[in-house]
Amino acid sequence: MAGSPRRAAGRRLQLPLLCLLLQGATAILFAVFVRYNRETDAALWHWGNHSNADNEFYFRYPSFQDVHVMVFVGFGFLMAFLQRYGFSSVGFTFLLAAFALQWSTLVQGFFHSMHGGHIHVGVESMINADFCAGAVLISFGAVLGKTGPAQLLLMTLLETVLFGINEFVLLSLLGVKDAGGSMTIHTFGAYFGLVLSRVLYRPQLEKSKHLQGSVYHSDLFAMIGTIFLWIFWPSFNSAPTTLGDGQHRTALNTYYSLTASTLGTFALSALVGEHGRLDMVHIQNAALAGGVVVGTAGEMMLTPFGALAAGFLAGTVSTLGYKFLTPILEAKFKVQDTCGVHNLHGMPGVLGALLGVLVAGLATHEAYGEGLDSVFPLVAVGQRTATSQAMHQLFGLLVTLTFASVGGGLGGLLLRLPFLGSPPDPQCYEDQVYWEVPGEPEDEAQGPLRAEEPDTRA
Amino acid sequence: MAGSPRRAAGRRLQLPLLCLLLQGATAILFAVFVRYNRETDAALWHWGNHSNADNEFYFRYPSFQDVHVMVFVGFGFLMAFLQRYGFSSVGFTFLLAAFALQWSTLVQGFFHSMHGGHIHVGVESMINADFCAGAVLISFGAVLGKTGPAQLLLMTLLETVLFGINEFVLLSLLGVKDAGGSMTIHTFGAYFGLVLSRVLYRPQLEKSKHLQGSVYHSDLFAMIGTIFLWIFWPSFNSAPTTLGDGQHRTALNTYYSLTASTLGTFALSALVGEHGRLDMVHIQNAALAGGVVVGTAGEMMLTPFGALAAGFLAGTVSTLGYKFLTPILEAKFKVQDTCGVHNLHGMPGVLGALLGVLVAGLATHEAYGEGLDSVFPLVAVGQRTATSQAMHQLFGLLVTLTFASVGGGLGGLLLRLPFLGSPPDPQCYEDQVYWEVPGEPEDEAQGPLRAEEPDTRA
Amino acid sequence: MAGSPRRAAGRRLQLPLLCLLLQGATAILFAVFVRYNRETDAALWHWGNHSNADNEFYFRYPSFQDVHVMVFVGFGFLMAFLQRYGFSSVGFTFLLAAFALQWSTLVQGFFHSMHGGHIHVGVESMINADFCAGAVLISFGAVLGKTGPAQLLLMTLLETVLFGINEFVLLSLLGVKDAGGSMTIHTFGAYFGLVLSRVLYRPQLEKSKHLQGSVYHSDLFAMIGTIFLWIFWPSFNSAPTTLGDGQHRTALNTYYSLTASTLGTFALSALVGEHGRLDMVHIQNAALAGGVVVGTAGEMMLTPFGALAAGFLAGTVSTLGYKFLTPILEAKFKVQDTCGVHNLHGMPGVLGALLGVLVAGLATHEAYGEGLDSVFPLVAVGQRTATSQAMHQLFGLLVTLTFASVGGGLGGLLLRLPFLGSPPDPQCYEDQVYWEVPGEPEDEAQGPLRAEEPDTRA
Repeated sequence: MAGSPRRAAGRRLQLPLLCLLLQGATAILFAVFVRYNRETDAALWHWGNHSNADNEFYFRYPSFQDVHVMVFVGFGFLMAFLQRYGFSSVGFTFLLAAFALQWSTLVQGFFHSMHGGHIHVGVESMINADFCAGAVLISFGAVLGKTGPAQLLLMTLLETVLFGINEFVLLSLLGVKDAGGSMTIHTFGAYFGLVLSRVLYRPQLEKSKHLQGSVYHSDLFAMIGTIFLWIFWPSFNSAPTTLGDGQHRTALNTYYSLTASTLGTFALSALVGEHGRLDMVHIQNAALAGGVVVGTAGEMMLTPFGALAAGFLAGTVSTLGYKFLTPILEAKFKVQDTCGVHNLHGMPGVLGALLGVLVAGLATHEAYGEGLDSVFPLVAVGQRTATSQAMHQLFGLLVTLTFASVGGGLGGLLLRLPFLGSPPDPQCYEDQVYWEVPGEPEDEAQGPLRAEEPDTRA
Repeated sequence: MAGSPRRAAGRRLQLPLLCLLLQGATAILFAVFVRYNRETDAALWHWGNHSNADNEFYFRYPSFQDVHVMVFVGFGFLMAFLQRYGFSSVGFTFLLAAFALQWSTLVQGFFHSMHGGHIHVGVESMINADFCAGAVLISFGAVLGKTGPAQLLLMTLLETVLFGINEFVLLSLLGVKDAGGSMTIHTFGAYFGLVLSRVLYRPQLEKSKHLQGSVYHSDLFAMIGTIFLWIFWPSFNSAPTTLGDGQHRTALNTYYSLTASTLGTFALSALVGEHGRLDMVHIQNAALAGGVVVGTAGEMMLTPFGALAAGFLAGTVSTLGYKFLTPILEAKFKVQDTCGVHNLHGMPGVLGALLGVLVAGLATHEAYGEGLDSVFPLVAVGQRTATSQAMHQLFGLLVTLTFASVGGGLGGLLLRLPFLGSPPDPQCYEDQVYWEVPGEPEDEAQGPLRAEEPDTRA
Repeated sequence: MAGSPRRAAGRRLQLPLLCLLLQGATAILFAVFVRYNRETDAALWHWGNHSNADNEFYFRYPSFQDVHVMVFVGFGFLMAFLQRYGFSSVGFTFLLAAFALQWSTLVQGFFHSMHGGHIHVGVESMINADFCAGAVLISFGAVLGKTGPAQLLLMTLLETVLFGINEFVLLSLLGVKDAGGSMTIHTFGAYFGLVLSRVLYRPQLEKSKHLQGSVYHSDLFAMIGTIFLWIFWPSFNSAPTTLGDGQHRTALNTYYSLTASTLGTFALSALVGEHGRLDMVHIQNAALAGGVVVGTAGEMMLTPFGALAAGFLAGTVSTLGYKFLTPILEAKFKVQDTCGVHNLHGMPGVLGALLGVLVAGLATHEAYGEGLDSVFPLVAVGQRTATSQAMHQLFGLLVTLTFASVGGGLGGLLLRLPFLGSPPDPQCYEDQVYWEVPGEPEDEAQGPLRAEEPDTRA
């Protein structure tokens, strides 16, 4: 379609070869390194003479499934708001997340669960891999519509490694708490994507302006994503916490925070909207900021009031960001942020990290009792004061911002490699570059990009 | 758009101010009253030296999540059948339910879980608050398209209080059993909404007749709501029952009842349809009546056959209601019931209450064994006979109908306050009154309500 | 619409009468035979003095709910890809599955859980009935668009019986392992449907060629089905396994296999597509083949690498099947396979059965330890060697193919009974034959099949 026949032939082979190469490499690494853990291996589990009811599966798997829905349905459909980019939004989410699950199992395994030269896998590694996929999809949101699938796979390859390193530094080296990933997932994913988008800046992007908006039905598809993300966010934040009160409290705090970000978003959206009308962009996105902002503090003794206050703040800041900051980011800083991930994940992620600093700093033996050991183990054993834990949390945020920015910059340079075909400006946000798109009755008169005939399956 | 500039400015501020006021009020009340319960508080939980596996989270949270999906995805998309009201259906569901969760936590907490001046929250209060949100959304269905978001928030404010009082009278004072809420949720929500709709009667509503129908895609969006409601209804009815056999049996009964209401609905829909054709309105709604009708008796020893019979009856009655009763309700009784909640929640709810009377009256020590204590504790300890329990159940239905009717009347008067802008008749069922609506290629020629340009996010 | 008034009147009554007859019959059989099992009966459960936490509900119900989502949302929306057959795809899925759940409870109960003349039901029978519904819906996919609801109900009636017999022969008589149903569900459902479709061959089907494709939005609806199937497939395969490591390992293996089939599908789809473009048909379907292919071996010690390899193979074979085999099946073998179930369920199902043969044959006491008893009990007690188990697995595949083929043939003859109205060739894949379809602005000019006015609910 675009360019010479040779270039077209090159693009034809690029995605298949890259998929096959990556799949081959992870398969070999799986064969060498990955093994069932004690809870999934028939011999190891039965050797221990456990009760089957004690298997971690029963405590984590329902949460895992909710997280899985968020990654594939939530992110995929949330990004389907564009009028002609639904196939790519849902489809590339599918591809990138599937690859990220494999690759992150290896990367996170090297850092977190290497035993005797082997990576041991089970429901916890499944949750962690889905978390990494979430970060990748946040970055995808920043460059949505402006990058091809081969570019995006390379982005995933790089980002997953940096995600694993950053997570290792924070959780294992610095002893930072970040169960729901305000830092490791949201801040990291957002700023990685934003810096990457900056490097890929397209001055002529207005050539595809007619494709940058939504249509009525695409906004409803996007709401499927929004609502599933909103519903299951309590499971997301609580999936990897300590069992018992920790998991329970995290889910509860997230639930409250989200209700408040929703009310805040509706209030602010109507306030700043023309004629007092609500804007779907705000409702689809900013209402979710309450989940992001308690990603760090949700497992702490935040109190229900604290959850409401944090969620409300996040929803308002996020809505104002969509209204006022996003245009400035593009005009002044040359950051083209398709989904506004700076508003949904960037600022609320940083706020969430700072909230974690605050609540960690306020931790007392009185408030946590014997439970202090499971929330702040280093404080409980006297190795750190609460203030010191707070400082470590703050340092974790700075580390994350550094890794994300450097990584996004490297990613941008990688994706600018000339042989990686990226869509020309007038064909950004257009499925037909990468997909066979069926004709639609109402679209017949819209020009040369339309497909000639409907697909047939039978 | 409609009316003078001053009125437009007033509307512009009404929703934001109301959201901020309500959020501020609940936040203050949360700060004063709401505390983690024993299962979510770090100090309290660890003080008791429990096994983490005993935390109620693991027994209730998967059911809670299913209920949560029903409230936000189920109700939201079910109401998205209207061709130009999908943003409002999904969006206002989102707003009202988010507020109801906060407000109901307070109201139900005052009545049910006040300990030492504090409301103790955890997964049970989350389930209960979602149940109240369900009742509010049922009422919303009756007035869908004819009320603005500020009106609906005030309705939620009032209805949540009355829901809490009615629930307290039934469950705590009268010792009525109603796990899945045939009375407290469905009957209450339906008649509250119907009386409210009666008070708001619009004689000129046919001015928006062209917007009252569905289009092909909007009916498919509505089916997303239907199917998720149908699938998760067993979790809804079983979420608050006693653990063990009670929860298990309730889910099983609901599962069977729903299959029978589905078969009954298909049978009756084709029977009464023109040319024997099926009507999406029936399939989307009446097929769910099997869940409503076992909301009271589902936890009792209804028997699998009893569940089938009840579900079949509810499906047929509901379908016939849509076909024959809804037009009469509007023509003769001036009740404009947008979603037909009388057919899906009203009649099946009353039938479900009566089924509860019947099955409670038939309870014997022989049938329930030692389990009688968890289903009918007052009968088990000899404080009541089964017949007396049945009479209490029946009285509970009458109390519910009274509270709902009086509450709906009060609500109607409240919503008629002149400064609360409600949409003019020709703009009922039209998103554009409250939302920035993107243009669509196929809609360009449809007149002055269309937006001028697509929204842009970046 | 089509044919004489008498025929129209006949069709008008056919579906209602059949629904009522089937519902009446199952209700009577339920009254006579079906009873709560020990875990759902109040008296039986409390008699045993169990801890409520031990109730099977807490170990199986979350998996059941995921399976339930797959059956109703997954299959229903996956088949909604056709531009004018979404109501039928989602609606008939709803009807057939609801009936199959009742009928299969009886059929499977007769074979599997008859105690003292009664069928005992609980969460395990719920899972098993949903599995049978899955097989029925696979067969539905082969004949989608070419059969009416009365025909499909009769197909369900017959197929459920044969499904139950085949399952009984494999699991109970032959001692074959097939937790996720590579044989009993996928192979059986696919070849039953394919043979049935062969018997119903329509040489003039190109008369409805204009309706056989998708449109942009219908492909997005189908992706809802795809993604929910993909996400929850780990729960599907693990729902009926032994508790503990068995369930955990099955979910893990399925998760990995699906990631690999997704990468394989994207690779092959772009490789064989025109201009290197991806084809939604492949992504929607072949990416799921990884779930099918580990339906037998998923609970065995397949190893994570084995899961990746199997999934990749299945994804590639399935994609190539859609591209090259489906046209040949129609042209040479007169099998019109609307959804390509041969590619998604047929070939991957057979591959999955063969993978089961291989992995069973490799089973050793060393690899499984004490866990051998729960995966291969007959091998563990020395009644069989691993090789013998493998041979039994292989024989199970042959039995399944035989039952499916004979059953599909019988089903085809049944559905050709002349009084069962099937849609004429030009009206295949058209909702309006069976449904009141609302008008759409963009459809107004498309001829006499359009409805005259939108439906109204209020």
